[in-house]
Amino acid sequence: MHFTANTSSNGVVERHFTLGEVTGALWSPAVDSGPTSVVLMGHGGGLHKQAPAIVARAHHFVTTCGFAVAAIDAPGHGGRARTPADEQLIATLQRARAAGEPIAPIIVEYNASLASRAVPEWRASIDALQQLPSIGADARIAYCGTALGTAIGIALTAADSRITAAVFGLLGHESLIEAAASLTVPLEFLLQWDDEFVDRHSALALFDAFGSAEKTLHANPGGHAQVPPFQLNTTTEFLIRHLGATA
Amino acid sequence: MHFTANTSSNGVVERHFTLGEVTGALWSPAVDSGPTSVVLMGHGGGLHKQAPAIVARAHHFVTTCGFAVAAIDAPGHGGRARTPADEQLIATLQRARAAGEPIAPIIVEYNASLASRAVPEWRASIDALQQLPSIGADARIAYCGTALGTAIGIALTAADSRITAAVFGLLGHESLIEAAASLTVPLEFLLQWDDEFVDRHSALALFDAFGSAEKTLHANPGGHAQVPPFQLNTTTEFLIRHLGATA
Repeated sequence: MHFTANTSSNGVVERHFTLGEVTGALWSPAVDSGPTSVVLMGHGGGLHKQAPAIVARAHHFVTTCGFAVAAIDAPGHGGRARTPADEQLIATLQRARAAGEPIAPIIVEYNASLASRAVPEWRASIDALQQLPSIGADARIAYCGTALGTAIGIALTAADSRITAAVFGLLGHESLIEAAASLTVPLEFLLQWDDEFVDRHSALALFDAFGSAEKTLHANPGGHAQVPPFQLNTTTEFLIRHLGATA
Repeated sequence: MHFTANTSSNGVVERHFTLGEVTGALWSPAVDSGPTSVVLMGHGGGLHKQAPAIVARAHHFVTTCGFAVAAIDAPGHGGRARTPADEQLIATLQRARAAGEPIAPIIVEYNASLASRAVPEWRASIDALQQLPSIGADARIAYCGTALGTAIGIALTAADSRITAAVFGLLGHESLIEAAASLTVPLEFLLQWDDEFVDRHSALALFDAFGSAEKTLHANPGGHAQVPPFQLNTTTEFLIRHLGATA
């Protein structure tokens, strides 16, 4: 993990890093008060590690809870190179969208491909984060990400037992059910009741499938991008409950 | 409103009252710091105004938020007289339960009967609460109640515009849809994913029907009586958001 930039504002230090091909960002409390818990943030499709919603949440979790927050760009996102297969899927997606044809099957295939590549990248990132003195090997780790961030997060949480709580949502598809059923960590799952990209019944079926004894569905009216601001309060409370607060 | 008893513990004054045939309880901050917002608490079927869950929540809302909390016994509950029709419905319910026959239709009929009688009793209680100097005519008012408390609460909130936010849940039936669709106040709706008394799809249909622009569904695994303790935190946050906190 090579740190390439370092800025500080409002009590939050933001560092950019590379780890092999992976580009990432780490937000931490400006005042080091010992090892912190970590929130891994997965961005949505077409976005990147410094999308405004990611940065805003990172600052909120650092200043409110004292957590460190890490985000990495998914393969082909945030300036990372796309493979020829990625380019082909995106071209297919754009043609289908322009023609008014169903795009969900294409997104499912693209998400699955991204998740298979992102999981080892996230696992290597966790290895590197645990080497940092401000985090350490005993840090409690949660994952937060919706849409593409959930496709990646379900696969990651199924593969890596270091993740002990997760916030997912804005997604549902039968291809995710098997991995979802294998999860046992506490979950918060966000659903937008009028999501224009996600079938409500598929999202409810995904929530139903999670194997976790503690899982909470939070559903709100509105479209994919209209998760209400107050939802951040319950997510914060969920993370504090499972990671502890150090601020 | 005649106060008949007055006790105080842990910063909370509990007063019992009668209002005509209605028996009620009012919990308030022991230290009077001006007019407070009010939470009306509706109990579940077969319970009463001082059921342990009601008393625990009342103390929590008073000490955490500075609200006043009022609860009244539903007709035929908490020592209030049952009508011959009530007795007949309860006997029918007990026979159906003993015979392993469906009890939902009987409960729906009983709930509807209780709601039609409870609404004017709640409205008279609100009138009387607004006369108290510690509450006043401008107090913001929310309603919280699940199961029977939701059957009554939907009818009450549809009938009385003084209620400006509500927490409902653990119920769903087509007979409630029309009144639910007429509601416009912010709502939190609790659903137990494995509720042995409430059909999941009916509960989701009831959530879907509410006319409110702000409505949040919180669903958790487990049976009717297994709402997780952490749910109280989001309900508290919801009430603070809509009533303000005075503590």
